[in-house]
Amino acid sequence: MTEPLPQGAVIGILGGGQLGRMLSVAASRLGFKTCIFEPGGDCPASHVSNFHFQKPYEDEDALRQFAGAVDVVTYEFENIPTSALDVLEEARPIRPGREALRVSQDRLTEKEFLTGLGLRTAPYADITDLPSLEAALEEMGTPAILKTRRFGYDGKGQVRINDASEAEAALAEMQGAPAILEGFVAFSHEVSVIGARGVDGQVACFDPGENVHRDGILHTTSVPAKLSTAQRTDAVLLAGRILNALDYVGVMGVELFVTREGLIVNEIAPRVHNSGHWTQQGCAVDQFEQHIRAVAGWPLGDGSRYADVVMENLIGDDMDRVPDIAGEAGASLHLYGKAEAKPGRKMGHVNRVGRAD
Amino acid sequence: MTEPLPQGAVIGILGGGQLGRMLSVAASRLGFKTCIFEPGGDCPASHVSNFHFQKPYEDEDALRQFAGAVDVVTYEFENIPTSALDVLEEARPIRPGREALRVSQDRLTEKEFLTGLGLRTAPYADITDLPSLEAALEEMGTPAILKTRRFGYDGKGQVRINDASEAEAALAEMQGAPAILEGFVAFSHEVSVIGARGVDGQVACFDPGENVHRDGILHTTSVPAKLSTAQRTDAVLLAGRILNALDYVGVMGVELFVTREGLIVNEIAPRVHNSGHWTQQGCAVDQFEQHIRAVAGWPLGDGSRYADVVMENLIGDDMDRVPDIAGEAGASLHLYGKAEAKPGRKMGHVNRVGRAD
Repeated sequence: MTEPLPQGAVIGILGGGQLGRMLSVAASRLGFKTCIFEPGGDCPASHVSNFHFQKPYEDEDALRQFAGAVDVVTYEFENIPTSALDVLEEARPIRPGREALRVSQDRLTEKEFLTGLGLRTAPYADITDLPSLEAALEEMGTPAILKTRRFGYDGKGQVRINDASEAEAALAEMQGAPAILEGFVAFSHEVSVIGARGVDGQVACFDPGENVHRDGILHTTSVPAKLSTAQRTDAVLLAGRILNALDYVGVMGVELFVTREGLIVNEIAPRVHNSGHWTQQGCAVDQFEQHIRAVAGWPLGDGSRYADVVMENLIGDDMDRVPDIAGEAGASLHLYGKAEAKPGRKMGHVNRVGRAD
Repeated sequence: MTEPLPQGAVIGILGGGQLGRMLSVAASRLGFKTCIFEPGGDCPASHVSNFHFQKPYEDEDALRQFAGAVDVVTYEFENIPTSALDVLEEARPIRPGREALRVSQDRLTEKEFLTGLGLRTAPYADITDLPSLEAALEEMGTPAILKTRRFGYDGKGQVRINDASEAEAALAEMQGAPAILEGFVAFSHEVSVIGARGVDGQVACFDPGENVHRDGILHTTSVPAKLSTAQRTDAVLLAGRILNALDYVGVMGVELFVTREGLIVNEIAPRVHNSGHWTQQGCAVDQFEQHIRAVAGWPLGDGSRYADVVMENLIGDDMDRVPDIAGEAGASLHLYGKAEAKPGRKMGHVNRVGRAD
C-alpha cells in the first residue's frame, strides 16, 4: 500500500488505552474509522471507536479477523507479543514497522542501536549475572540504575543502586530477567522531541517540550523548552537520524537529557508519547493526527506551534481536582474515561494555554 | 438533577450528523460516554460514540430505552418531533429545554419572541394566504423573502420575491405550509455569537465570528470579526438576554446583521452552530465542550480566544481539495466521515490558524 488511505478506510489500533483513544479521535477528524484490539472491556479507546475486538493477543483467529477488518495496523504500546505481530504482518502493513519495535522493546538493543548511529546515551552495561554487575559498578561507579531489558515503563522494573554492596539485592529484584545497568548522567533538564516520518520519507518534528517527572512518572511538559537555537537544531537532526535509520513510519517520542556537553538520548518510544499531549492545544495538527497521517500514507501536517502550553498529567486522586481545573481560565481538560482512579494511574491531563511569543 | 454529572455518565444525543459527532468527541474529553439516537446507519456521530440507537423518532419503545440508557438528553438539530420529546421528557431532562425548541422551530414565533424582548429583527409578516402576502409586500416593498415557518435550513424552504407580481408563484412554492414574509435589511456584514448558559444561570459567549455565505450556505467564519468594542458589548448583552429569557441550558448560535443603526437578529439556533467551529482551534474550551459542560451541569469553561482562525466549510466536491489542504501550513482538517459527497452536503471544514494579536 503506497496510495494514501481514502475516506472511510479503517485504522486498526493495538491497545485500547488513552493513547489509542486520542488516536481514534484524530483518525475520525480525517474521515477514517477505527478498530481497537484490546483484551480489556470498557477501555478508553472503545468509547470513541467504531469497532472493538475484545480478545487476548494470543487469539490468532481474532487477530486474523481484526486484520481483515482494517486497512493498516498501528499500536499504542511497544510490548506487543511477537506472535501477534507475525499473524498481523501476513495480512496488513504494520506501521511503525517491526524494526522499531524490536529496537525499542529491549533497553540494551536500543542503546546499541543509538550508539551505533553515533548518538550519545547514558553509560550502560549488559548484566547477565552478579559478576558482570559487580564489574560494571566498578567501572561506572554509583549511583547507577539496574533495569530489566524488557517491559519497563513509568519507573517499573528498575532499582537504584547507591553503593556496590547493594548489587546482589538489586539483582534479586530483577527476578532472573535479563538486565542492563545504566549510569547517571549529570543533566540540567530533560526535553523530548516528538518526531514523525511519512511513508514517503518526509520528516517533521514538533517543537521540543521540557519534561518534569514526579515519582518516576511524567508530571508536566512545557513548551517552549529552555533550549538554545543550536540545541533545537541538534534535537531535530538527531530525531531525524533515528527515524531514517529505522525507515520509520509514524510518530516517535525521543527523550533527551540536556547536558553541558550536548544532548544525550535517554530513550525512544515508537508511538505517540505523553510528552506530546501539549500539541492538542498548541498546533493545528497534533501528534495523534500526525501519527494517523503517517500510517495512512498521507502527507505529514504542519506541526508549527502557535501557542505556549503547559501539559500536566492527572494521576490517581488528581481527579479530585477536576472540578477546580474545569473552572480555570485557559485550561483544556482531557479525561480518559477510566472507571477507577488508582494511585499512579494516568486518568487524564490538562493543557494550560498561553499565547506564543 | 442539579449535581454535575460524574465521570462515566452517558450523554444522550438526538441526531447523528457532524454536530453530534463533534459533541461526542467533546463529551469523551470530559470522561463521559455518549449514546446517539439517529434513524440513519453509519452516521458520522456513531463512529465516535459508545452506543447508537438506529431507530425512527416515532418508535416510542426505542425512545424509552434510549432515555433509560442515558443521564441527560440533548440534540444536534431543532426539528425534533414533539411526540418524541413528550416521551423523553418523562424520563430524563432535555437540555436545552423545550421552550427554546418551541421558539426556534417556527420563524414567526421566533421573531415575535425576539421583538418581545426588545430586540430588533428584519421586518416580517405572518402569511396565511395570497391577500395577506400582497398586503405585506405592499407595506414592506421588494425584494423580500417568503419562507416556510418551519423546517427550513441552509436556504431551503425559501423563495425570493423581487416584484409584487411574483406573489402567487412564490406562495405556490410553499405548498400550503404556513409562511412568513421577511423584508431585506441593509447590513454591512453578518456576525454570529456563540453563547452558552449553564444550569446555574452563568452565561459565557465566545468572541463573535464574521460569516460569509455562498449559495445560501455558510462558507467561512473568521475571528476576529470587524466589530467595534461597543458592538461587541451589544452582541454579548443581546445573546445573554435571549439565553436568560429562555432559561436556556447549553450552547446557542445567534446570527446578527451589522447595520449602521445597530445589530439586528437574523436567527437563533438552539444548538452548537456551524459558525462556532473555529473555536476548536482558537479556544481552550470549544463550543462542543461548552455545550456538554452546560448539559452535564458542569461550570462553563473559559472560551477566551488565543488564536486568529478562519473556518471554511468543505461542501460537496470541495472534498477534492482535501489532499491540497492537508499539505497547507496552519490548516486543521475536520472531516465528517460521510460516505458520499453530494452537492450542497457539508462534508467537513478546515480551520486555518494564525496568531492572535
